[in-house]
Amino acid sequence: MILVRQEIGDVLRDFRLQKGRTLRQVAGKASVALGYLSEVERGQKEASSEILASVADALDVPISMIMREVGDRIAVLEGLEVFSDVVPDDFATAIEPELSLH
Amino acid sequence: MILVRQEIGDVLRDFRLQKGRTLRQVAGKASVALGYLSEVERGQKEASSEILASVADALDVPISMIMREVGDRIAVLEGLEVFSDVVPDDFATAIEPELSLH
Repeated sequence: MILVRQEIGDVLRDFRLQKGRTLRQVAGKASVALGYLSEVERGQKEASSEILASVADALDVPISMIMREVGDRIAVLEGLEVFSDVVPDDFATAIEPELSLH
Repeated sequence: MILVRQEIGDVLRDFRLQKGRTLRQVAGKASVALGYLSEVERGQKEASSEILASVADALDVPISMIMREVGDRIAVLEGLEVFSDVVPDDFATAIEPELSLH
């Protein structure tokens, strides 16, 4: 079973690491307990909508960007897409036809 | 404050109505209490990841489609997009350039 909280946790952690921030910094800014944020990142706790809004704000990332990334990753898990961030092969072929000839 | 559960509720209800199903039908197929599903749809209760997976399955809608629609609607609420289906997905990234710098 695909669990949304697992993907939300992964995405929150990836954004945090991308920004070079520690759990402690983000938890402090978001006013959530460090242990709780850690559990959310590991997909062990559901983040309430209020917590999610606070953490997104602390990360300076729009909630929409988090949810879309979650949707993209779940699409891969559901087998609806092979790569979430890569241009499909047939699209690349269509715009660069010579690429497929070599 | 933008609450994800409100958007999730709206999206679940819209998909249900689009499919012409009643609350009772979906709640029964997903094995969740009718009153609980009703509260989720109205944004009054957070749906756990397990409930969300069951309801998505009962609606025959991929979870990724639900989460992407939630992301699109929140982008509009965040003022990142005027129309969710018109502006390219990378628009949000383009106006948050600092994300890729850290």
